[in-house]
Amino acid sequence: MTSFMEKFRSARSTNNSLLCLGLDPDRDRIPEIFEQMEVEKWCKNIIESAVHVASVVKPNVAFFSANRLENELERVIAYAQYCDLPVILDAKRGDIGNTARQYAREAFERYGADAVTLNPYLGFEDCMEPYLEYDGRGLIILCHTSNKGSGEFQELMVDPTTGRLVYERVAEVAAKWDEKAGGGRIGLVLGATYPAELANIRRIVGPDVFILAPGVGKQAGDVEATVKAGGENMAINVSSGINYAKNPFAAAQEFRDQFNLYR
Amino acid sequence: MTSFMEKFRSARSTNNSLLCLGLDPDRDRIPEIFEQMEVEKWCKNIIESAVHVASVVKPNVAFFSANRLENELERVIAYAQYCDLPVILDAKRGDIGNTARQYAREAFERYGADAVTLNPYLGFEDCMEPYLEYDGRGLIILCHTSNKGSGEFQELMVDPTTGRLVYERVAEVAAKWDEKAGGGRIGLVLGATYPAELANIRRIVGPDVFILAPGVGKQAGDVEATVKAGGENMAINVSSGINYAKNPFAAAQEFRDQFNLYR
Repeated sequence: MTSFMEKFRSARSTNNSLLCLGLDPDRDRIPEIFEQMEVEKWCKNIIESAVHVASVVKPNVAFFSANRLENELERVIAYAQYCDLPVILDAKRGDIGNTARQYAREAFERYGADAVTLNPYLGFEDCMEPYLEYDGRGLIILCHTSNKGSGEFQELMVDPTTGRLVYERVAEVAAKWDEKAGGGRIGLVLGATYPAELANIRRIVGPDVFILAPGVGKQAGDVEATVKAGGENMAINVSSGINYAKNPFAAAQEFRDQFNLYR
Repeated sequence: MTSFMEKFRSARSTNNSLLCLGLDPDRDRIPEIFEQMEVEKWCKNIIESAVHVASVVKPNVAFFSANRLENELERVIAYAQYCDLPVILDAKRGDIGNTARQYAREAFERYGADAVTLNPYLGFEDCMEPYLEYDGRGLIILCHTSNKGSGEFQELMVDPTTGRLVYERVAEVAAKWDEKAGGGRIGLVLGATYPAELANIRRIVGPDVFILAPGVGKQAGDVEATVKAGGENMAINVSSGINYAKNPFAAAQEFRDQFNLYR
């Protein structure tokens, strides 16, 4: 099977794009789509509108599971892959041992995702192995998230002699595990709303570790600084900015081109 | 609606028990139950076997979602509540803003759970509000988890002058938010495999904050130390030790009685 990183690089090259297309079908914003049971079709339409300008698709499972739409999510993921786009399941799972094994099964067998987002709070040792057992699939670890209050625990200083913060330690541990796994397996989530922290982590982990950078569009992350800091092994996520644009096709193209201005 | 804490206290008193009954239906351990599509029945049988000796039921959503059993999980939860036991949905969710709102909807509307376990890594500010909006429901935050490698980030020191560690900071923030929410809303997960850390947190947050203590049984947590450290506003979880016992009824009673020895 082709690995997540190979699929990402291939789509990035074919579509000349760092754009990650987020899929957040929100019942409060499109109630009529939910009433008419057309969420799957809505998602597929959004994918179609970005199929030549995105490098990866990222559905957030919460929007589906809140509304009993797991079966629809399975088909949406298969459709994105049919369109030659790899899929990151945005699930932010984090559990131990045997339970981590279940979540790995959910992400990679049930949904057939190419990568999944994971939460590092419980530590790598008892949590990551079950995901790594799926050859070539990506584990994308929350590092410095895009939200306003992300610093509450992520920016606590854990080493006064080096000044290391929690999120930096997470990145160091992730990079070490990625190396042990042969590389190209473990990536990081770094919010585009914190381009300095993103640049900092890129320096720490080197150019090859995959970065998922959400926060552009609605959250107003800094595009130029993000593109310059993250380099080529990065996908910049836009969800609302495309999902709820008057013309998703034009919006997706615009984001792609805007990112490319600074590559 | 009766709050999670009221339901827990009522069941604790009626059944004279600190036992939390975990439900982890594992396809690898009971393949025949999965083949015969009898997971729902299996879960209900386990609940029945502990209905007079447990104070709360905790299904782990991963075991259901890995196997497309969300509908079954809904009915299992409803059944536990029909048996007058409150339900903690063990989901360990953690996401921001609008997505947190979806996960709150999943836990409290779709599944109708009385409480849900949550991951603090993204901070409280952008994550907890959507759950708090559901009156009386419990938010149970991962603090010091039961796994061997839990210290990797949870025990990093974040304040050299006071010696505060990450998990202690999480507990302090949680207690502050619980107070702001009127009390009885925010609890903590503290592994029974770390009774000294559990005792430490009980001193920090006071006797009223709810503690969920997993890790007894298979993980060999120290029962006496846990019961003595945690006090009455605690439920000690056992999953495998009852789920896969030859006689779940006897096992549940035995755990309850063992816990009561030290109360």
